[in-house]
Amino acid sequence: MGLPAPAGFDAIIGDFPAVFPNVVMNSLPRLRLKKGEDRRLRGGHLWVFSNEVETAATPLQGFSPGDPAVVENARGETLGLAYVNPDSLICARLLSRDPDAPLDAEFFARRLRRAAEWRARLYERPFYRLVYGESDHLPGLVIDRFGDVLVVQTNTAGMERLQAPLVAALEAVFAPRAVVLKNTSALRELEGLESYIRVVLGGVETPLEIVENDARFLVDPIEGQKTGWFFDHRANRARLAPLCRGQRVLDLFSYTGAWGVQAALAGAARVECVEISEPALRLAAENARRNGVAGRMAFIREDAFEFLRQARRERRHYDVVVLDPPAFVKRKKDLAAGGEAYRRLNQAAVQVLSYGGILVSASCSFHWSPAALYDLLRATARHLDRQLLIFARGGQAPDHPIHPAIPETEYLKAAFCLVRQAE
Amino acid sequence: MGLPAPAGFDAIIGDFPAVFPNVVMNSLPRLRLKKGEDRRLRGGHLWVFSNEVETAATPLQGFSPGDPAVVENARGETLGLAYVNPDSLICARLLSRDPDAPLDAEFFARRLRRAAEWRARLYERPFYRLVYGESDHLPGLVIDRFGDVLVVQTNTAGMERLQAPLVAALEAVFAPRAVVLKNTSALRELEGLESYIRVVLGGVETPLEIVENDARFLVDPIEGQKTGWFFDHRANRARLAPLCRGQRVLDLFSYTGAWGVQAALAGAARVECVEISEPALRLAAENARRNGVAGRMAFIREDAFEFLRQARRERRHYDVVVLDPPAFVKRKKDLAAGGEAYRRLNQAAVQVLSYGGILVSASCSFHWSPAALYDLLRATARHLDRQLLIFARGGQAPDHPIHPAIPETEYLKAAFCLVRQAE
Repeated sequence: MGLPAPAGFDAIIGDFPAVFPNVVMNSLPRLRLKKGEDRRLRGGHLWVFSNEVETAATPLQGFSPGDPAVVENARGETLGLAYVNPDSLICARLLSRDPDAPLDAEFFARRLRRAAEWRARLYERPFYRLVYGESDHLPGLVIDRFGDVLVVQTNTAGMERLQAPLVAALEAVFAPRAVVLKNTSALRELEGLESYIRVVLGGVETPLEIVENDARFLVDPIEGQKTGWFFDHRANRARLAPLCRGQRVLDLFSYTGAWGVQAALAGAARVECVEISEPALRLAAENARRNGVAGRMAFIREDAFEFLRQARRERRHYDVVVLDPPAFVKRKKDLAAGGEAYRRLNQAAVQVLSYGGILVSASCSFHWSPAALYDLLRATARHLDRQLLIFARGGQAPDHPIHPAIPETEYLKAAFCLVRQAE
Repeated sequence: MGLPAPAGFDAIIGDFPAVFPNVVMNSLPRLRLKKGEDRRLRGGHLWVFSNEVETAATPLQGFSPGDPAVVENARGETLGLAYVNPDSLICARLLSRDPDAPLDAEFFARRLRRAAEWRARLYERPFYRLVYGESDHLPGLVIDRFGDVLVVQTNTAGMERLQAPLVAALEAVFAPRAVVLKNTSALRELEGLESYIRVVLGGVETPLEIVENDARFLVDPIEGQKTGWFFDHRANRARLAPLCRGQRVLDLFSYTGAWGVQAALAGAARVECVEISEPALRLAAENARRNGVAGRMAFIREDAFEFLRQARRERRHYDVVVLDPPAFVKRKKDLAAGGEAYRRLNQAAVQVLSYGGILVSASCSFHWSPAALYDLLRATARHLDRQLLIFARGGQAPDHPIHPAIPETEYLKAAFCLVRQAE
């Protein structure tokens, strides 16, 4: 009827359904989830695991690491815009609920301003974690702010690919003296990314000086671990310091002296910092001098386990012991070995603690739960016949806020314990 | 062989085994546990539940409420000295591992000195929870210290019976101006105890003045709830206050204004205290005057749920909302109804919160877990389409230390939330 269809038209029509219920005018490829696998995302999480993808409809091999995609559920309903990494167990992370959000400098600037507004409310001085990844709705991105120097980690292939608009936004919003990409995180291996350090804007001479809880510290973002400083324990250090007045303090895994110097500044009688890294220990000593407390501090280059063995042999005792080790349980499969390391460490720490002493036992291992830490402390007290009370449970400072739908955003715990002779 | 035994001796001998492996020269009756039921006590807990007792060997009916007893395991090995209440689900609580400990003034004095030593290290001024029951190894006993007035709760039949040596010890250790027994806790019903208030030493005129975090407060131990003051939120109030500068603050279930006055003192633009009790509200207003912040505070006598409904109807908004309600889940069976009350309350609170506002959501219900609170907050944010981040998890102040082997010693949680427009 009417004009004849051009040759081959019938055949083309035959490839499409008569109605097009889910047509979206977006040129991005789509990533379809299996039935029910949108539940976590609808709850507010941002991650898609590779076994949740309907690979028959949208094969992951169709994506290159960092490709953007529109995520949809099994019914074809759009969930948002994500970046994809087919080589990672976390194969996609949502960037926006708006599938058409342009991933440009303005997108980053909006998120960055929001993140900065919160930190400015928390702290008078510009020293803090400015962006905390998923909690700031910038998955895979970490930025620490050391005044006008921004130290950035793009820990996923997707965020790595977005560096250009990100850096443009950082320049527009903060006009920083320097932006440093400190891309040396072990997480990058999981994403197939290489390790490197690069100054991408301005220039920087290290170390830099920051202020935390009224103490001054030198920080080296280039040579130091991670971004050079661990802002996450800020509130915990402030909590401990007043309890150190007149006490003999042992700061294990002291790094550059954040706990120890603040304890000394609060009036500790003596502080010993134990650290295996020579450059970190040198910086700790310099930080002590900078705060006028070097006379009451000692710096010992030693493995913490070995130091504790020696201290026990020599029957030396401390009134306050801070245990802030690196993550012993980085992956689930480390649980047994890492748990055992925590056990040995905490037991040895209690053994050098005087009666009525304070133990701060921290762990930054996400896979090692708060319950595991508290149970270990209970068992340690039992085993050594001490009375142990937990008088405070510390967590991450408020510039590392927890997203309640993303359990992975909560990793830090610090149990403040009073350890007394058993009755 | 030798002299004949006196008449009847053989018969007496016949009542005993030939060997006496577990003879204890203690005239106290013994309470025997069933096999395996000593596990919790060996872990450090102090409670025996009635279904754990080997009643065939040691019937509970043989005890009067408050009787002392030596607790032993199924093999007859001594676990310690306890007091018993056959009418309570918690039928015994351990007082000492030493079965021969004399329960005299010296016993109490030792425990009290140890408890006081810890608080003196924490706080410069004598206003705190001096004894926190099981954590201070004085099960069933709570003492709040308001300077030289001690307000005591003996919440179990066993502790009730030990009032004489306890009060003697309080006098010896603290030389207080007054000791008040504020025995009105609902817990007493479970122990078959009556409710009363009695000044057992010295005299007291109320209200008293205390200082918390540099704010001054009037406290009425006689007319007020529980001991008259809730020391447990002290650290949480200190944490919130600096975030209230320039903000419109709503303090729900304000009681005598502890949160609100400290927020105003820290520079809040305006604080509204909502409380249903007229006497509590009068004291709150007086507390505002005492701290020179009455001009920026309002006091509303109203049910919190009704107040929130009205505020929402009138589209009033606040920048900070504090939700510190009484326990809605007092017993396990209240879980459904109490959980629903928490849900309605938190939802209504978020609805009157301005974008970027702060919600402090607290619960003192032991049976309502931290996980339940955090999950409720997640679900509330989802339901109202807000982004909610938990930037701090508060607990009990350090004068309410947690005993890791006694989960019941941990009851207070306070989630500090930043609530923003969804992205």
